[in-house]
Amino acid sequence: MTENCRAMWTDLGLDLEGHTALLDVLGKAYQDIYLSQKDRPEAMDYFDFVMSEIHGLRIMELLDEKKAGRKIIGSYCVFVPEEIVLAANATLVGLCSGADFATEEVEKLLPRNTCALIKSSFGFKLGKVCPYLESADMIVGENTCDGKKKAYESLNHLVKNLYVMDLPQVKSEQGRALLKTEYDRFKAAAEHLTGVTITAESLKQAIRTVNAKRNAIHRLSSLRKADPAPISGLDALLANQVFFYDNPARFTKSVNKICDELEKRIADKKGVFPENTPRILVSGCPQAVPNWKLPFIVETSGAVIVGEESCVGERGTRNLTDESGETIKEMMDAIVDRYLQVNCAIFTPNPERLDHIQEMVADCKADGVIHYSLQFCQPYLMESIPVEKALEEKNIPCLRIETDYSMEDAGQLKTRVEAFVEQLR
Amino acid sequence: MTENCRAMWTDLGLDLEGHTALLDVLGKAYQDIYLSQKDRPEAMDYFDFVMSEIHGLRIMELLDEKKAGRKIIGSYCVFVPEEIVLAANATLVGLCSGADFATEEVEKLLPRNTCALIKSSFGFKLGKVCPYLESADMIVGENTCDGKKKAYESLNHLVKNLYVMDLPQVKSEQGRALLKTEYDRFKAAAEHLTGVTITAESLKQAIRTVNAKRNAIHRLSSLRKADPAPISGLDALLANQVFFYDNPARFTKSVNKICDELEKRIADKKGVFPENTPRILVSGCPQAVPNWKLPFIVETSGAVIVGEESCVGERGTRNLTDESGETIKEMMDAIVDRYLQVNCAIFTPNPERLDHIQEMVADCKADGVIHYSLQFCQPYLMESIPVEKALEEKNIPCLRIETDYSMEDAGQLKTRVEAFVEQLR
Repeated sequence: MTENCRAMWTDLGLDLEGHTALLDVLGKAYQDIYLSQKDRPEAMDYFDFVMSEIHGLRIMELLDEKKAGRKIIGSYCVFVPEEIVLAANATLVGLCSGADFATEEVEKLLPRNTCALIKSSFGFKLGKVCPYLESADMIVGENTCDGKKKAYESLNHLVKNLYVMDLPQVKSEQGRALLKTEYDRFKAAAEHLTGVTITAESLKQAIRTVNAKRNAIHRLSSLRKADPAPISGLDALLANQVFFYDNPARFTKSVNKICDELEKRIADKKGVFPENTPRILVSGCPQAVPNWKLPFIVETSGAVIVGEESCVGERGTRNLTDESGETIKEMMDAIVDRYLQVNCAIFTPNPERLDHIQEMVADCKADGVIHYSLQFCQPYLMESIPVEKALEEKNIPCLRIETDYSMEDAGQLKTRVEAFVEQLR
Repeated sequence: MTENCRAMWTDLGLDLEGHTALLDVLGKAYQDIYLSQKDRPEAMDYFDFVMSEIHGLRIMELLDEKKAGRKIIGSYCVFVPEEIVLAANATLVGLCSGADFATEEVEKLLPRNTCALIKSSFGFKLGKVCPYLESADMIVGENTCDGKKKAYESLNHLVKNLYVMDLPQVKSEQGRALLKTEYDRFKAAAEHLTGVTITAESLKQAIRTVNAKRNAIHRLSSLRKADPAPISGLDALLANQVFFYDNPARFTKSVNKICDELEKRIADKKGVFPENTPRILVSGCPQAVPNWKLPFIVETSGAVIVGEESCVGERGTRNLTDESGETIKEMMDAIVDRYLQVNCAIFTPNPERLDHIQEMVADCKADGVIHYSLQFCQPYLMESIPVEKALEEKNIPCLRIETDYSMEDAGQLKTRVEAFVEQLR
């Protein structure tokens, strides 16, 4: 298998040496952070397998799909509607942006004061270590934050197949109209790429497939309400991360299998941490694979994470697309309505995000909130101050953290997190 | 007069102590930076007077206008169309954002990693030292960069009369439609504020008034092409800064008076610096009063600044609004078309800005470009890298500077600027 993989990675133009180094680091991190956890649900072995093959078997699958004429579309954001991609008989995958790579090269193209996620996406391209990116027939950028918006202008010189989607900044009538126009344009682009005309049937099926993924994740979220927590925040985050990579139907089935097991655990009052362990909601920037830094620190500091108000988490998955439409127009409208509800900090104002954080605190029975911002991520950094203020006014403890992908501040973060957890007891 | 001013400032709710401290610093800076220059055009005495009365007589004028029933609209951005404001019988003024003030208080509301311009706007409010802000009947924010967009959400808690204008991120058909909708909405808001219905006549007159201001500035820019330079970059920047504060007709007349004098100087081969002094184009972030840091360093380092590709400069003033429309609809369309041409880095992509920089280098006969970015200003920092690359490919030397409003890095900047100037000789 390793030989096959090597040949595949070579064909994709990866830098084998750099890629091996990356996989080694990733494997060791997974071992230290994930496999060292105690009392994990057995069904998590599926995700262990997925992670061990994330640049192996899954890429082979995608390449097999390509050989069979299917197209692969890569994305960096939850605003790219998987419903449209699937309906056009293409596969949507998230693109790597969760680890530092080739930083010196990256900083020739991007200012040093750029968030780690954007730098990472460039690093994986410049270092030639992301097989998803190299497999993709179309890479979709989107005008979310200033950093990404401007970075795509430079990325456009590094890749041949970048498609940029404009997005509104306000949830107004005009904002909705812009999103509608852009999703219609994306639908046409996906159809053009695949040569497949989206039909009412294919769109309806795609909506159902994506909603099923979301429903499985909702079920998982709901089970995390139990005390003792039946699953760690690390493992639940992993499920949310794999959401962006896996085959949708298989993902749905696997998450539901975990949920079956968690239900038994809850009935047996069995948890991964003792009852009354301080419960934390993490809110803020997305945590892309393999960015497990914060949950690892939190869950080795005497607390359990019970929810993620994040793009890689409930912000990205909470809303379903209405399935009742019969025509393409009705379903496209439903898709627009669904995505316009995402409470990304790029929107101004964005009061629904604060409402959602408070709802999640209540639903997950969280004792406190850690607001997680990537350094230089202006939208979430800006929102973190009013979020903290509003939560503290409601006597919900809040710790604001600003960090990046390096481990340099891990000790300092751990000290702060431990002090925060102590306060929640 | 001082007694009158004190009473006026008290009535406006200013903090007299802080305000006196600010004016003292401003007065000393003006003395050291402006009045120490040699061979200045005599007609600059008008701007010296304006600056000495920028918080005095000019505020009295505005308050007199208010007493006569006119409304004052304050703005932080060149996307707020003065044509509409004037046509509604209101006065547009730029709001203070060029100096650090009350930084400790500001950083309770905004992340430390926020650009100096945004922090300054909060500092002037929190410190109660901006008489323009306190005189304004409406304060207009605009969704340009992430920093400003999110900061207005917090500013909305500090002021009673904030109006936020949405802006497009792409110069597409949808982008234009959004701008049109927003300008129509702003027209209605201005009419509502003033109780004055904009007519074809008033709008036409307003377009002419604003174009006349721009034409005067164009004339000034054009005279700066001469070698020896007939006016310093500092003085020309000041004219561009006062553009945002002064009575439009008086401003136009005053700039044209300077231009008359400069024409004589050019005929006499008289300059503020010797012939063949290295000539620099400054490109990038706006330099608001009293942010004279960079031009002061440059022009005391053996070079002269011959143009500003900036919002406070040619980016803001270069385009005229077409005057040929006869109906309100035609003129509103012309206004939309005019402002959509502004090459702000919030647009993606923004290739016209690079074209404009190169045109300006040729027009101003610049020997090199200094790209000026405020620290944490992602849009201009992001663009600075491809701008530098493109210029260097055309053998145009470029120095990228990233700074803020403090003087802490002045020594280091001076060393870098001197080395750059040496390279241009």
